[in-house]
Amino acid sequence: MSEPLNVADYAALAAGKVDPKVWCYFEGGAGDEVSLRANAAAYGRWRFRPRMLVDVAEVSTATTVLGAPVSMPLLVAPFAMQGLLDPDGEVATARAAAAAGTLFCVSTATTSTHAEIAAAAGNAPRWLQLYVVRDRQRTLDHLAQARECGYSALVLTVDMPRLGRRERDLKLGFQIPADLPLPYMRGTGVSHAETMAQHFSTTPSLTWDDLEWVAAEGGLPLVLKGILTREDGALAAERGVAAVFVSNHGGRQLDGVAAGLDALPEVVDAVAGRCEVYVDGGIRRGGDVLKALALGARAAFSARAIAAGLAVAGEAGVRDVLSILHEEIELGLALLGCTSPEQVTRAHVEPVVPYHSSPV
Amino acid sequence: MSEPLNVADYAALAAGKVDPKVWCYFEGGAGDEVSLRANAAAYGRWRFRPRMLVDVAEVSTATTVLGAPVSMPLLVAPFAMQGLLDPDGEVATARAAAAAGTLFCVSTATTSTHAEIAAAAGNAPRWLQLYVVRDRQRTLDHLAQARECGYSALVLTVDMPRLGRRERDLKLGFQIPADLPLPYMRGTGVSHAETMAQHFSTTPSLTWDDLEWVAAEGGLPLVLKGILTREDGALAAERGVAAVFVSNHGGRQLDGVAAGLDALPEVVDAVAGRCEVYVDGGIRRGGDVLKALALGARAAFSARAIAAGLAVAGEAGVRDVLSILHEEIELGLALLGCTSPEQVTRAHVEPVVPYHSSPV
Amino acid sequence: MSEPLNVADYAALAAGKVDPKVWCYFEGGAGDEVSLRANAAAYGRWRFRPRMLVDVAEVSTATTVLGAPVSMPLLVAPFAMQGLLDPDGEVATARAAAAAGTLFCVSTATTSTHAEIAAAAGNAPRWLQLYVVRDRQRTLDHLAQARECGYSALVLTVDMPRLGRRERDLKLGFQIPADLPLPYMRGTGVSHAETMAQHFSTTPSLTWDDLEWVAAEGGLPLVLKGILTREDGALAAERGVAAVFVSNHGGRQLDGVAAGLDALPEVVDAVAGRCEVYVDGGIRRGGDVLKALALGARAAFSARAIAAGLAVAGEAGVRDVLSILHEEIELGLALLGCTSPEQVTRAHVEPVVPYHSSPV
Amino acid sequence: MSEPLNVADYAALAAGKVDPKVWCYFEGGAGDEVSLRANAAAYGRWRFRPRMLVDVAEVSTATTVLGAPVSMPLLVAPFAMQGLLDPDGEVATARAAAAAGTLFCVSTATTSTHAEIAAAAGNAPRWLQLYVVRDRQRTLDHLAQARECGYSALVLTVDMPRLGRRERDLKLGFQIPADLPLPYMRGTGVSHAETMAQHFSTTPSLTWDDLEWVAAEGGLPLVLKGILTREDGALAAERGVAAVFVSNHGGRQLDGVAAGLDALPEVVDAVAGRCEVYVDGGIRRGGDVLKALALGARAAFSARAIAAGLAVAGEAGVRDVLSILHEEIELGLALLGCTSPEQVTRAHVEPVVPYHSSPV
Repeated sequence: MSEPLNVADYAALAAGKVDPKVWCYFEGGAGDEVSLRANAAAYGRWRFRPRMLVDVAEVSTATTVLGAPVSMPLLVAPFAMQGLLDPDGEVATARAAAAAGTLFCVSTATTSTHAEIAAAAGNAPRWLQLYVVRDRQRTLDHLAQARECGYSALVLTVDMPRLGRRERDLKLGFQIPADLPLPYMRGTGVSHAETMAQHFSTTPSLTWDDLEWVAAEGGLPLVLKGILTREDGALAAERGVAAVFVSNHGGRQLDGVAAGLDALPEVVDAVAGRCEVYVDGGIRRGGDVLKALALGARAAFSARAIAAGLAVAGEAGVRDVLSILHEEIELGLALLGCTSPEQVTRAHVEPVVPYHSSPV
Repeated sequence: MSEPLNVADYAALAAGKVDPKVWCYFEGGAGDEVSLRANAAAYGRWRFRPRMLVDVAEVSTATTVLGAPVSMPLLVAPFAMQGLLDPDGEVATARAAAAAGTLFCVSTATTSTHAEIAAAAGNAPRWLQLYVVRDRQRTLDHLAQARECGYSALVLTVDMPRLGRRERDLKLGFQIPADLPLPYMRGTGVSHAETMAQHFSTTPSLTWDDLEWVAAEGGLPLVLKGILTREDGALAAERGVAAVFVSNHGGRQLDGVAAGLDALPEVVDAVAGRCEVYVDGGIRRGGDVLKALALGARAAFSARAIAAGLAVAGEAGVRDVLSILHEEIELGLALLGCTSPEQVTRAHVEPVVPYHSSPV
Repeated sequence: MSEPLNVADYAALAAGKVDPKVWCYFEGGAGDEVSLRANAAAYGRWRFRPRMLVDVAEVSTATTVLGAPVSMPLLVAPFAMQGLLDPDGEVATARAAAAAGTLFCVSTATTSTHAEIAAAAGNAPRWLQLYVVRDRQRTLDHLAQARECGYSALVLTVDMPRLGRRERDLKLGFQIPADLPLPYMRGTGVSHAETMAQHFSTTPSLTWDDLEWVAAEGGLPLVLKGILTREDGALAAERGVAAVFVSNHGGRQLDGVAAGLDALPEVVDAVAGRCEVYVDGGIRRGGDVLKALALGARAAFSARAIAAGLAVAGEAGVRDVLSILHEEIELGLALLGCTSPEQVTRAHVEPVVPYHSSPV
Repeated sequence: MSEPLNVADYAALAAGKVDPKVWCYFEGGAGDEVSLRANAAAYGRWRFRPRMLVDVAEVSTATTVLGAPVSMPLLVAPFAMQGLLDPDGEVATARAAAAAGTLFCVSTATTSTHAEIAAAAGNAPRWLQLYVVRDRQRTLDHLAQARECGYSALVLTVDMPRLGRRERDLKLGFQIPADLPLPYMRGTGVSHAETMAQHFSTTPSLTWDDLEWVAAEGGLPLVLKGILTREDGALAAERGVAAVFVSNHGGRQLDGVAAGLDALPEVVDAVAGRCEVYVDGGIRRGGDVLKALALGARAAFSARAIAAGLAVAGEAGVRDVLSILHEEIELGLALLGCTSPEQVTRAHVEPVVPYHSSPV
């Protein structure tokens, strides 16, 4: 293959480089992977409505999330165990995100420590993705560390009362290596199911009422990740969260749910401007990000595109993936007739169906 | 293939193990198999709307059908001649269903006797599927045996005034073996068409008015199997049946009818709570069962998944298939934010089409 | 291949037997063959709504067309040059149709004479398909022969002011053989385009006002073949034709028009019972015929199914094709809960889309 | 391959003849080529509603665009660097268009001079496609030449404030040859991106207010090419342009926008007869042109069909492609029941969806 030109090229290179028994963990989804495929397909159901003869000599992709300035509305989604893809793991990703001027949301299941990541990221904004686990003390300890290590928001994952059944991992026999450092997860295991369940032993009894103590202990703005319905969007806004993160967990939890993008409009409508809304799932192009903006997202997150870059070339790979997406977003804004992300509106997209004027 | 992880794995193993001239009978449908494929495809037209931050520490899949407690809303549908797949035939299925705590609906066309099945099933609930055949005395005899052998409901098949044309059987030359015991069907034959027509010589003149004598003779709650329209659903409810079983007979009768799941909502609306409603056709995942519940079914039935387990490993295979589906249902409930089948509502699913908010 | 069980089997056998340079003429359509494929696909957009517990002990497929009794609502459509497929040509088809008790609509472009066909058909009803050609005297002569040879209706083709462009013929170099008898068409030619245009030199100036002299000269009930819009259906009914024949000419005239079945409902609505309506295009199953009835057709016609039978086994092949369709229609009626074609109503079908009850 | 019978045949021959590193430039689109494929697919979502028994003995495809008579409503769209496909480049195309009696819209990026093209075209109507480049003096010079060289309208491209990212060119390493004459573009380059950006250095600050000076300097009717929304259609009509040209630039600018045909109806509705409307994108058949007319276009343009003819056989190839399309348009008009392009109305097409009469 020639030099990778786009995210799909990086994904193909990564699939050819990483051990399939490891790559399956990053690429796979739950069950029949219906929701995984839905993520990628969702963008194709919307098309752009570009406006012409707008002065786009000066285009900026910069925006803010929870007040933090970022170079573009594409942020790095949390994903686990980045040390499986590159020796520098989250440190490499943090450096690349900082260089790109965008935000890195760090997973609970890191292979690096928060201190290492903080050192790598410098002043770039970082958020911490949080699982509330069965042992509440561990969560409290984790929150304390988050405050100390410079995270500026907590992204609480709410769609994992149990771990989804990821059959690709089971078919290929994916194992978390016994010697893989996981400083914020407990223990190591032998069988996949046990290992995964042991590591990701989130509490199944978390409810809306728990948000108060999480927020109080965290002392940081709270983002709820994993919302897929207008009902939960409205509840989240009523509870005063800082942001709602629409996500189907990369198609890895309940198979058969909507793509993030498909659920986005109803959540945006329900939130009604009371907090920011983000989305992830299936982002492969800058145009995907622009569609997410048009449907009401403040920003979009990507995990698998970043994982591909990390697997192919470590920090340099992530930098290149972010650079490609940045350029695609900028070009897309100009061709849409917009000079900033804020100018992208619902009128810049429409469903892919023919417009039927009335017969004469 | 590695260990089977799901029903599709079992189906693939069964197709590789059973003589194609026999497997065709269990797998095939009528005509061009449009309705057969429709069954499997129907679930894909609905997606889940999961609710978050619900306490799902305790989830139970248990429910009841016609008052009988079952471990889950997935029951064993009637299908014929199970002795073709395993020497123990219906006895193996009965043991596995009983072990799983679910209900076994026994076909008229068993290769075991009701007494043998009753002995195997123990206290687990059993229903009897009934064809009203041309020779009414045979039906009366059959009903008498049903009462004696501990069946707790009659499932009257109403969609077979004539036998559907199953061309896969004809292409492959499926024959009912001359020595196969069929204690509740008459005779044996040589050519397929004759054999099948002879064995399944249901009466084409059965009408709504016959329900009275069937119910009276049976002395058991009556379930009508094979309903596909709101009109017939309403008639059934008016006649006071215990339940309506929405089914296209596994795509084996009139090719071109709706999938069970597609017909379910209109029947549920027409029945309007006057009796229970079940559905079958195309169940391959626990998620399929949950979609059926969301659309108004009290429970779903599966035949082909059970047949695959039976063919692969007899009683142990059926046990494993039921166990897989049980786990999938339980995990699905938890991830939907429900702690019991009764909590699954119409709001937990939506058609797979994009939600279009109004352009600004 | 084993014995042919259905029309698709016959089509496959015919394609393997007949010289491709000849078979292309019978199988091909115009342009990109969009309308040809649309014909077959149209039936798949409707599904059956069968009614249960109806006494179907006695089912008859018999019906009438323009008062003539036929054994079933499936009639033999006109198609040209049957002598290319079997030495007996239209004579074989006439015998088979008569034996099946159905109607044979004879093409203008026969390779047999009307006298030969009449002798073969006996008392079975026959209609004559008519092109009005540029040389009006030839048309008048043809009408005179029609009256003499026992035809009971004229089927005037109105969708061929020019011959459609059938590129499959051109690619394969189809030629009408110089020695092929075409008693009611003029001359023979060498190049395809010239030959076809010369033979099928219909007049492009035919208008609604010409119907009067055609009807007067013919002295027979007039059927208009090739109507595809509500506007033309209404005009036809106003002009007092005996029947409207909805057809896209087997996808052989203007590519990109609707399938016959797709146009049928709007024509039926426009005609509003003032005359009979027929349809053709894509009939491969008895179920297709039943869908046409449900959407308002009095009967359906098939050409390619008959051509396949004729090519495979001459008269016996046509008999078998008609027998297969007859059995499929009868079984379909019984499984729909109808005892005659007249009982099939619009409520027996519905579009293939999910029914969405309101969310609770 | 036998003699090419249609545009698809020409495209296949061209793809087999031209160096892939050159052909990619003509065939490729931007990004994932979603909009490129959408162009071709759009026509398939509409079907014809042909009217019968209309006198079509005399059919003329002739029409006018901005008052200029043309032999048919299919015009030659502007496309760049025709000298890459044939030594005579635009001169060959101009001769063929003139011979066919249709209009040639000449690109800014010609490899021939306007004087050469004018000499070749004779009295046939010619329009000039214009980019407004960063160096306004070059644009003014170009406009002066346009007036001198007999162009009768200016087609201002408004959808290229930046050059789209055409990855097929990048993958294959397309380079504009250093010695290729480009009399109205500046310089030559080495790398693709630089070369293309340098040559097509359109100004990104062009706005609606610039239309006045362009029109004043040009002294010719102004056509806006690249409009895709009702909003921009309305603005164009308000500004008094002579025509709006609905186009997605052959899928080469913003990937993910609508096909030209999909955007056409809303633009036609917004323009409301105040100026002419044209469309391009995906024209491969005369029937495509007729669908464009039915949806409100005055005429359709084609570039890739012309490029294929030019690549295969130079001027003779373009003549043949135009002749094929002319014949398809004429035959299509006759079979639609129309004797001129003006008779094609919105009622001659409908979306490809089934018509659902009400159930009885």
